[in-house]
Amino acid sequence: MNTKGPIGIFDSGYGGLTILKAIARQLPEYDYLYLGDNARAPYGNRSYETVYQYTLEAVEWFFRNDCSLVILACNTASAKALRSIQQQNLPAYNDKRVLGVIRPTAEIVGNFSHTGHIGVLGTTGTVKSGSYNIEIHKFFPEATVYQQACPMWVPIIENGEQDSTGADYFVKEYIDNLLQQSPDIDTILLGCTHYPLLKQVIYDIMDKQVALIDPGAETAKHTKRYLIEKNMLSEKAGEQQYRFFVSDLSQSFVRMGSLFLQRELDGIEKIDIEKY
Amino acid sequence: MNTKGPIGIFDSGYGGLTILKAIARQLPEYDYLYLGDNARAPYGNRSYETVYQYTLEAVEWFFRNDCSLVILACNTASAKALRSIQQQNLPAYNDKRVLGVIRPTAEIVGNFSHTGHIGVLGTTGTVKSGSYNIEIHKFFPEATVYQQACPMWVPIIENGEQDSTGADYFVKEYIDNLLQQSPDIDTILLGCTHYPLLKQVIYDIMDKQVALIDPGAETAKHTKRYLIEKNMLSEKAGEQQYRFFVSDLSQSFVRMGSLFLQRELDGIEKIDIEKY
Repeated sequence: MNTKGPIGIFDSGYGGLTILKAIARQLPEYDYLYLGDNARAPYGNRSYETVYQYTLEAVEWFFRNDCSLVILACNTASAKALRSIQQQNLPAYNDKRVLGVIRPTAEIVGNFSHTGHIGVLGTTGTVKSGSYNIEIHKFFPEATVYQQACPMWVPIIENGEQDSTGADYFVKEYIDNLLQQSPDIDTILLGCTHYPLLKQVIYDIMDKQVALIDPGAETAKHTKRYLIEKNMLSEKAGEQQYRFFVSDLSQSFVRMGSLFLQRELDGIEKIDIEKY
Repeated sequence: MNTKGPIGIFDSGYGGLTILKAIARQLPEYDYLYLGDNARAPYGNRSYETVYQYTLEAVEWFFRNDCSLVILACNTASAKALRSIQQQNLPAYNDKRVLGVIRPTAEIVGNFSHTGHIGVLGTTGTVKSGSYNIEIHKFFPEATVYQQACPMWVPIIENGEQDSTGADYFVKEYIDNLLQQSPDIDTILLGCTHYPLLKQVIYDIMDKQVALIDPGAETAKHTKRYLIEKNMLSEKAGEQQYRFFVSDLSQSFVRMGSLFLQRELDGIEKIDIEKY
């Protein structure tokens, strides 16, 4: 197998643009297709069946568009759909790979902890799936994982309220709930693409020192290692090409996407994921 | 025309169950089909095109399922899709009617105001559409309408946070923004199915007296008047039958739906709106 075509990055919305940014920095040899299923976002509370179906439609769209490597930047999709998709073994999947954000993070998170008590913050869907817990134990069987769903954080960030007193309240509520499970937690994983935007508020609210781990950065490094190990690194001269696709051409994608990617987003194309 | 079959009630999620409850109380002669498109909720931030497409799919689903009267309980769908759907004039629409929640409320809201300064609270989509403003002016041309989007309120209610300090913050923020536009506002319309659940918090936070108008109650009364005027009231003996359909069988629909409907929700059926 050799990775050809652009690398595909999938998310339910614009949150995955932070992961695109991190991966593109690690892998400048590639072109990128980004797809945000914002017509059906957020995925956080949806059932397994629905998250699986939506994610599968997206993966097949990437395959039809010449991507042989697809990264599920969405934690919920990684948690609830990735394993089933990897097990499909459809003929169309030959020489194609789908990776998520959970395993790369699980592989390293234990290295940051002295106590072995690790906190995982995520959407309701990610927490209920227990995926971070399961994956972390594969690499750090001695670790104890504590989870906390933070359903108010995505709306706070999406409405630009992260510096408000209201945000402080909901950050403190969930962090307190997590630390009440174990005061020895010294490493906290921000298991949703949006959460790194609350990093400073989280630091400010906690009176103890913890390591805050961002799965986006870890996934980017992991993807590079993966391609090197499999001897799949492309060689390419010239500038990186980006193309952005969405299922709903809403104003908020452009506005928030620019914030997440930290550059102007232009030429966004709308597609109907189900049909094409 | 004669209304036959059950009355269809459509919402993007479970919020419309409050409207089902209000309508069923006014019209005990009918059976009811409720459809919540929770696999693609919330609609509040989506584009016109997407809200129109999703709503049209739902309306056609009701028509295929023997409903000749469909109520769009969703404010965003009423604001962004209803007019286009009513103008379709498809052959399948003969003898069928689609009504929304905005017009019935616009017809009466001016009667509550002494100052003629009316506030409208809604999702970003409802506010941007300006639909309440347009409809209110048809019936009360002298009124001045002030709008405020309240995007944090739906997540607060859906996460059961309405009695928290965080909720107080975001209720005060939006109410202050509204009243800063005009201190003479004496009537406020709660233009989203969820907002009536914050009624008490809103009352507590305001130091002046205002009328809070719930479109669900007004739509129910309007629907009854409409059927009487058109001489379309059915006669039926026996118990009301309810059937509940969703596009995603998630736990939160059952839990939150029971809260909104104030009774147990059972026998919920999952459908694929696009395909059937």
